[in-house]
Amino acid sequence: MALDVDSVLADLTLEEKAALSIGSDMWHTAAVERLGLESIMVSDGPHGLRAQFEHGDHVGIGDSVPATCFPTASALASSWNPELLYEVGQALARECLHWGVSVLLGPGVNMKRSPLCGRNFEYFSEDPYQAGVLAGAMVRGVQSLGIGTSLKHFAVNNQETDRMRVSAEVDERTLREIYLPAFERVVTEAKPWTVMCSYNKINNVYASQDHWLLTELLRQEWGFDGLVVSDWGAVHDRVAALRAGLDLEMPPKIGYSDTAVVEAVRSGELDESVLEDTVRRLLDLVDRTRPAREDQQGFDADEHHRLARRAAAESAVLLKNDDQLLPLAADSKINILVVGEFAWQPRFQGAGSSQVNPTRIDLPLEELRTLAGPEVVINFVPGYGLEDGGDDATLQDEAIAAAAEADVVLAFLGLPAAAESEGFDRTDIDLPASQRDLLAALAGANSRIAVLLANGAAVSVSDWQQHATAILECWLGGQAAGGAVADLIFGRANPSGKLAETIPDRLQDNPSYLNFPGGQGIVRYGEGVFIGYRGYDKAELEVAYPFGHGLSYTSFAVSDLDVTVGGSVADGDLEVVARATVRNTGDRDGAEVVQLYVADPASTVPRPMRELKGFAKINLAPGESGEVEFRLEQRAFAFWSERLHRWAVEAGDFEIAVGSSSRELTQKQTITLDAPSIDGPLGSESTLDEWLSDARGRGLLEADPKVGPILQQLDGPMRQMIGQMPMSTLAGFGMFGVGLADLDRAVAQLSAESAR
Amino acid sequence: MALDVDSVLADLTLEEKAALSIGSDMWHTAAVERLGLESIMVSDGPHGLRAQFEHGDHVGIGDSVPATCFPTASALASSWNPELLYEVGQALARECLHWGVSVLLGPGVNMKRSPLCGRNFEYFSEDPYQAGVLAGAMVRGVQSLGIGTSLKHFAVNNQETDRMRVSAEVDERTLREIYLPAFERVVTEAKPWTVMCSYNKINNVYASQDHWLLTELLRQEWGFDGLVVSDWGAVHDRVAALRAGLDLEMPPKIGYSDTAVVEAVRSGELDESVLEDTVRRLLDLVDRTRPAREDQQGFDADEHHRLARRAAAESAVLLKNDDQLLPLAADSKINILVVGEFAWQPRFQGAGSSQVNPTRIDLPLEELRTLAGPEVVINFVPGYGLEDGGDDATLQDEAIAAAAEADVVLAFLGLPAAAESEGFDRTDIDLPASQRDLLAALAGANSRIAVLLANGAAVSVSDWQQHATAILECWLGGQAAGGAVADLIFGRANPSGKLAETIPDRLQDNPSYLNFPGGQGIVRYGEGVFIGYRGYDKAELEVAYPFGHGLSYTSFAVSDLDVTVGGSVADGDLEVVARATVRNTGDRDGAEVVQLYVADPASTVPRPMRELKGFAKINLAPGESGEVEFRLEQRAFAFWSERLHRWAVEAGDFEIAVGSSSRELTQKQTITLDAPSIDGPLGSESTLDEWLSDARGRGLLEADPKVGPILQQLDGPMRQMIGQMPMSTLAGFGMFGVGLADLDRAVAQLSAESAR
Repeated sequence: MALDVDSVLADLTLEEKAALSIGSDMWHTAAVERLGLESIMVSDGPHGLRAQFEHGDHVGIGDSVPATCFPTASALASSWNPELLYEVGQALARECLHWGVSVLLGPGVNMKRSPLCGRNFEYFSEDPYQAGVLAGAMVRGVQSLGIGTSLKHFAVNNQETDRMRVSAEVDERTLREIYLPAFERVVTEAKPWTVMCSYNKINNVYASQDHWLLTELLRQEWGFDGLVVSDWGAVHDRVAALRAGLDLEMPPKIGYSDTAVVEAVRSGELDESVLEDTVRRLLDLVDRTRPAREDQQGFDADEHHRLARRAAAESAVLLKNDDQLLPLAADSKINILVVGEFAWQPRFQGAGSSQVNPTRIDLPLEELRTLAGPEVVINFVPGYGLEDGGDDATLQDEAIAAAAEADVVLAFLGLPAAAESEGFDRTDIDLPASQRDLLAALAGANSRIAVLLANGAAVSVSDWQQHATAILECWLGGQAAGGAVADLIFGRANPSGKLAETIPDRLQDNPSYLNFPGGQGIVRYGEGVFIGYRGYDKAELEVAYPFGHGLSYTSFAVSDLDVTVGGSVADGDLEVVARATVRNTGDRDGAEVVQLYVADPASTVPRPMRELKGFAKINLAPGESGEVEFRLEQRAFAFWSERLHRWAVEAGDFEIAVGSSSRELTQKQTITLDAPSIDGPLGSESTLDEWLSDARGRGLLEADPKVGPILQQLDGPMRQMIGQMPMSTLAGFGMFGVGLADLDRAVAQLSAESAR
Repeated sequence: MALDVDSVLADLTLEEKAALSIGSDMWHTAAVERLGLESIMVSDGPHGLRAQFEHGDHVGIGDSVPATCFPTASALASSWNPELLYEVGQALARECLHWGVSVLLGPGVNMKRSPLCGRNFEYFSEDPYQAGVLAGAMVRGVQSLGIGTSLKHFAVNNQETDRMRVSAEVDERTLREIYLPAFERVVTEAKPWTVMCSYNKINNVYASQDHWLLTELLRQEWGFDGLVVSDWGAVHDRVAALRAGLDLEMPPKIGYSDTAVVEAVRSGELDESVLEDTVRRLLDLVDRTRPAREDQQGFDADEHHRLARRAAAESAVLLKNDDQLLPLAADSKINILVVGEFAWQPRFQGAGSSQVNPTRIDLPLEELRTLAGPEVVINFVPGYGLEDGGDDATLQDEAIAAAAEADVVLAFLGLPAAAESEGFDRTDIDLPASQRDLLAALAGANSRIAVLLANGAAVSVSDWQQHATAILECWLGGQAAGGAVADLIFGRANPSGKLAETIPDRLQDNPSYLNFPGGQGIVRYGEGVFIGYRGYDKAELEVAYPFGHGLSYTSFAVSDLDVTVGGSVADGDLEVVARATVRNTGDRDGAEVVQLYVADPASTVPRPMRELKGFAKINLAPGESGEVEFRLEQRAFAFWSERLHRWAVEAGDFEIAVGSSSRELTQKQTITLDAPSIDGPLGSESTLDEWLSDARGRGLLEADPKVGPILQQLDGPMRQMIGQMPMSTLAGFGMFGVGLADLDRAVAQLSAESAR
């Protein structure tokens, strides 16, 4: 039965309203039984439901109901496939329906500013466009079945170190171009029912108390009409948070927060209408999610496991495949050595609030044996231990001996569970030394080694990849990762993932390196807009594998880029359509992710060398061709002008480049856009160069009997130096024989002409 | 006759006071004849007097009186010799005495944030300690003869691009640790009579209107008692500038600025006492400089030229000297080819307001021929042209043919005059392509090539140094550079210069690269404290030649580092004394610059790997040993705490490293300093880790019957995650079974104990 929101609101007491603005326990909103207002349940789980019906512990982490553990966001993002994200979203929603959970607390679209961030496995990309498109698809998938999502962590929560107090110091342009657009895209296009504010401060204001963030930007500018929930424990001042636009504090500090609100309303410190707006949003949410609660149903765990397996296969990135080592033929006579404890004790998810209690777990070794034909021999040695203090030397010796007998070695390597978690950051991006040592030793015994990686965020390959003939980055692939990797190894699936984060040569090359994770409660985003590939590209740094990279067992060629320009910047309706042809030039079915990047080579602010503005995944049979199309709106060409406090597109040439990675862009076309000038009107503080680059300003100066002749004589360094001086300074110097009064008259004349 | 400042001040009309707060023309202060108050003259010239008695042009650049052109600051800094700077300062003062100039407008101690800054040749170093020590010596030298100096450009004027409007956005710590300390050292130790404020804005406030900068910091904190003059044209709002602490506007906007001041006093907008303070400072300056004006005397141009030659020789840095190619024996039978137009048309100073009209110019080619013995043959070919559009191919062919006949090639290379100037920045750090092509071609014809470089700021050597057997970086060595280079080539002088700026492998490696020079009126100092070697070291980047590097014709060994600690951090009187032995292990007289760096390996904020905190230059005969001593005050170990808004030294280990460059530190010793904790008192926002690292906090938690047992059970990632959570968050979660009220009681208890 639908809720009569107005009527309930009118009947609530002040105390009830205050109580509704906080939860009733760790995972529930408050109920008001006398008015028939029910409590709803929210649960963690961007890649799998983590519904807790009893407290496992006091930070809300621990035992939860069995649920399908899908690949984490860093894996799913590598699929570059919005349809897949939508499917996973629907599956997550079906599990919520089953357990009576009304809001799933995800997805997280924070940017991967540094590979060290402990929670990167829960985030999508180092690119805001990619993160926004994929997260939006997941939100649509979940919400299509009546379950709410919570887009998190809003905003600028890009590290775990001191995350509950640190102030992220970020300039306006960097916020607008890098840290906010994924949120903006999801909010405006996919319309999540809730948004979760982050723990940290932004420019010294707690996100939970940031009126600009939660009200002016989120609601007024982006039109968000849902509920803002706090990250668990993010509220410091309940009344300040309400005033800023926060609706629901979680978990509740019952007896503190509600009392503070009641007192603030009574004292006049807080306008009761603010509280009412908040409660109305909660009632709306209860109402929105009611049909789903009334529709509790089972879910098909087998079906979800199959989806998880398909998703994991599509998320893996084939970094390297020399001599076409992979796939292996399952029907051949071949002696395979599987090395690595992870083949038997797989790592498939990260630690913290996203940790799922899986319905089952595929073991890679078992899955390989299941798929292998009768003539395939598969031996296994652990190679290294997962516990500290094991006897790695003995394990290594055993592995070397076995490798010498094998036709091919499959080395399952990766980060131990303790390396990646919510709550703290890594301090390096290396694989454990025991694994690197093992690999070097194996390479001495066998020259055909495929490395299968399990890790949630980039690991350095620079000091060991020479020992690997092939590298398949499987990320944290969820509970069915073991089956997926077997599918990929034996060619039942063809890798089609692409990197959503650069793998640098060295951690020190990362653009945030000098400024991560800060100290004394401050982290400065000193690299500005140059995060991820934007920074590596700008500094012309070699990287191990660039953003967007990923191989296939087949090959593709992109051709025939065609770009057409419609609309205009002046009218705000610019639309650029780019089309290209993709052909499968190999001999297997496969999928290619075609990427489109835009560059503005000449600009008044430093801009990245290229920025992702479109991508399309296309399945092709051998020899088959298909067309991909990209529609770019005006924003794709804009930067955020801090002078104008708005998006700005400058007239001039833009390069559209299309290809198979950010550094393999074979198709390029330059378009020229007309656009209104973004310069302000000429004034006395405008430089001589600015006057001369303005037609009317130049005319006035050249026609002046004193100024004109002097201008003609200027050249060389003196000309260059004077060009950058404001006219008022030059007039103050008596340059040109004109004074400040003459200058003021000229400015007035230009202004009058403009007004005409 | 001394001025009776009080009496003159009392007799001045308001209009006269206003007129005294601006100049009377481009280079003079105003006079009040009826009171016997004279006008004084100020002149450009950090490395040579640029006194103009008629306007060459309207920005004050152009013809000036003949004066000795000493090496520019970037050269002099490479001497690392304060005594030399003092001598040059005295020579400059003698030329001021001769021409009746009362204040010399220099030196400039802005930091070399980027090698691109067009005015780097006028600045000393990428290290504030080095810049402060050397500039202080120069100030003392000038002022010892009664001539005032003007320490400039105060502050954060580290680029020419848009320098008159750009806002340098710099955090407090970076200002305090990098951009202000050179000013602070000179102001507090050498006490310049004037300071010149810069054009730019700092965090959106024009330096000329920055009360914090000009009054709170400069006068109140540092005790500056002199006059603040504007950079020429830096005043935008005369009244705001006066209120901020600016005393003298240059050049005058007569009829504007003085009228505005009079009106502001009349309207009450400006307190007349502010104007009177300003005028009093001008009267003090007139009074201070009077003895020198009454002591006009000639100067010995020959003597100054000899000093300039010695200074240039001591400033050159021998970057590379394979096979001991240099020095050449002047008494041998040798066929030398001199290549390069710069040997005949030397480049020895930069363009802009520092450009001196030299008393004479040494030509390298002539000086080499003068010093060469009878059996030395010296041929010359230009090799490249200095004008665009010349026939470089023909010149190159001629050079190759000549090189094939020579025993050794001396290639005079460098940046053309148009590349380096006040008023604009470079866009690359390359030598001209014509010169690089020439060198590669020469290397095909002759394997013994010494490159002699003339340039004001670092040039890349990465793409050509393999063609050079030896490289001598001569910087912009002043009018006697030609003689100095001949002295060095023939071994009459032994190189002893060391780099005061890193030569990177690539411009893109420079820490400021992503943020230089900004755009739309903003430049962000995103690299923070990590400028120059601090950044290259932190990112563990290879460089072509590190900060502090420089070879000699002899060799040195540093040994026997001994460090003693006196005083204490708690009492604020810490003094660390380090002594080391230096031995000349080669067979020539020579001088070594021994450098001392301090590192704080474990700190609550990210700190540089090492920072220069001492240096000493010592002359030694072959086989001779000497001792160098460094006295480090407490500041040498401190960082600027943004939380405390003061300098802070943290307890723990510090490494003292001594050696011959920032990357050749053979002597190291670790000292352990005791120091009061810089953590604030434990509170509810302190994390669990912070409570546990505090003895009393830990005691309280461990003794608690609820908390203690839970603490013992925590481990692994969960323990790490919870450790970073504020206690209030944990209490809000109900963690430990304690509530917010319990926490408040615990905090109160700790606070009460502290108060006892």
